[in-house]
Amino acid sequence: MPDIVSEWICRIQPVEREAGEAAHAYLDTLTKPPGSLGTLESLAIQLSEITGHTRFEPSPPGVVVFAADHGVAAEAVSAFPSEVTAQMVTNFAQGGAAINVFARQVRARLEVVDVGVGSDLHAPGVVDAKVRRGTANMVHQDAMTREEASTAISAGIEAVTRAAEAGCKTLIVGEMGIANTTASSAMLAVLTGQPVADVVGLGTGITSAQQMHKVAVIERALAARQPDACDPLGVLSSVGGLEIAAMTGAYLASAAYRLPIIVDGFIATVAALTVCRLCPAVRGYLIFGHRSQEAGHQVALDALQAKPLLDMQMRLGEGTGAVLAFPLLRAASAMMVEMATFSDAGVSNASG
Amino acid sequence: MPDIVSEWICRIQPVEREAGEAAHAYLDTLTKPPGSLGTLESLAIQLSEITGHTRFEPSPPGVVVFAADHGVAAEAVSAFPSEVTAQMVTNFAQGGAAINVFARQVRARLEVVDVGVGSDLHAPGVVDAKVRRGTANMVHQDAMTREEASTAISAGIEAVTRAAEAGCKTLIVGEMGIANTTASSAMLAVLTGQPVADVVGLGTGITSAQQMHKVAVIERALAARQPDACDPLGVLSSVGGLEIAAMTGAYLASAAYRLPIIVDGFIATVAALTVCRLCPAVRGYLIFGHRSQEAGHQVALDALQAKPLLDMQMRLGEGTGAVLAFPLLRAASAMMVEMATFSDAGVSNASG
Repeated sequence: MPDIVSEWICRIQPVEREAGEAAHAYLDTLTKPPGSLGTLESLAIQLSEITGHTRFEPSPPGVVVFAADHGVAAEAVSAFPSEVTAQMVTNFAQGGAAINVFARQVRARLEVVDVGVGSDLHAPGVVDAKVRRGTANMVHQDAMTREEASTAISAGIEAVTRAAEAGCKTLIVGEMGIANTTASSAMLAVLTGQPVADVVGLGTGITSAQQMHKVAVIERALAARQPDACDPLGVLSSVGGLEIAAMTGAYLASAAYRLPIIVDGFIATVAALTVCRLCPAVRGYLIFGHRSQEAGHQVALDALQAKPLLDMQMRLGEGTGAVLAFPLLRAASAMMVEMATFSDAGVSNASG
Repeated sequence: MPDIVSEWICRIQPVEREAGEAAHAYLDTLTKPPGSLGTLESLAIQLSEITGHTRFEPSPPGVVVFAADHGVAAEAVSAFPSEVTAQMVTNFAQGGAAINVFARQVRARLEVVDVGVGSDLHAPGVVDAKVRRGTANMVHQDAMTREEASTAISAGIEAVTRAAEAGCKTLIVGEMGIANTTASSAMLAVLTGQPVADVVGLGTGITSAQQMHKVAVIERALAARQPDACDPLGVLSSVGGLEIAAMTGAYLASAAYRLPIIVDGFIATVAALTVCRLCPAVRGYLIFGHRSQEAGHQVALDALQAKPLLDMQMRLGEGTGAVLAFPLLRAASAMMVEMATFSDAGVSNASG
């Protein structure tokens, strides 16, 4: 394992179950029937475990979007041409994409990082951490070397370090990369042992004939690459993506900094599964923002025993589903800080 | 039908389908795969239909919480004693309840209206619109007269009128009333024809033995009262509640003012069903905030063909689930106003 990955895994502590138990006990003193705030209570308990405190502040959130291209796009697996990756990064830089709009709504710090866009970018404000111009086509060769994967992981760690130093209290990681559902489906099939056909969806909007083609492309790549499920970094380098590697690094660093992570949709969850295979303690830091419409997402969620906060039938990526879930963390925080207890308010409890 | 109800029904216009179609067409020009923002797109379309504009502003929201007591509480149907209604209204006035906390998060105008609390309140800031001190016990007589129901409906209309005059752009209606799941279950059984056992849940936290008792109490009341499903105001007055009547009035007025309404959980949805039986055009103004854990909620949602935005396993009432959903309306608005189009941003669309 690369030194950088081992080093950050060593920094990660398990979440604090005792703080969660204290939060649970405190929740039952608040002026509401016990458990009646459901998932919001579970969320408060998890945030207490992560931060070690029953009062925690999730704002401001930091959103980091990693962008990269994919050699496998040459196999016509996407509804959009590869140029759209760079065009959308420019759109991010200009503030016009969905992630910009939603990040502004929650006053997030937003950083866009180029870890492997295929062309030269002229997008002011985008962090240049390009490892290479897109991955290689996994049908013909490994998507990237292990060294390149490690460099992309470092870029993710550095982005989260900047966000943490800027004062962000919650991390949201998004991605942009035409054909990255293909890479993610390939990784997920290997990591879970599920048939490729069960983890391939419609991506940004291909037809069902194109979907069958996408399955065949991935099956060819897996037959040629033979990635080993017990070697997550090998899976990442042979059939993954540079932005997926960066996301993996971002999760490692967030957990090391004890920052809650809101996981976005399909690609973000595959990156989360990868990091949990490297370091299971990261799981406790992961809050799942939304259930994506992408077919493989449920498989990835099941592998992590995860239940997302929102189910909005979305399939955009960029971190959008995770950002939409952020106000629920803020509500969970306010519940713990601002609600009156039965004794404070002089309200009779259920025992009369 | 009382004059006040007829008068407000006459003011309600159907939502504007054309504005929704224009919103749908505009959404497909934005820099995202068509339809990829899922439910958020449907929400934007509905908000366009309600307001008549593809750009709409849902802030500030107005939250109105109606409180009242229930004579049927004497039958020991709740985990909490009746005094808790007044105690919780005092808690609302002091800002310590869950609804206060969540309303502050979204900068809502919050008004608490006493339409029938059983005792004298000394809670500054609570609007006194008390119709009577709690309903009668429906097991022995009608919960209220038709005139009293009509007065409570008027109180709801007046509360929404104040919110609209204060500049609120979205209405959220909550309730507080020990034993009001019993009244709501009774109403729902009549309005839908479902067996009582299928619409009775655990309320604020009764045991399953208490739940069987609650079913029996409602069955006795329905046998004695014989309410007619075709007469929604008759159902409301014979087995309903004063706060449920006020909620019905609030929905009528919100629709008349063309304000989007976020419907909360079980009790709020039974009130919504009641108002849609009186005036089906109200349905277009209703956005369903969350799926409650209360067993009968799904029956009420099915009767309205409604799918809620959130599913947080909550069962508190007060308007809490609806308020938690509010940031999604704000995100839908920002999406329509702030996102770049493909041509603005120079992004290639799916046809390359």
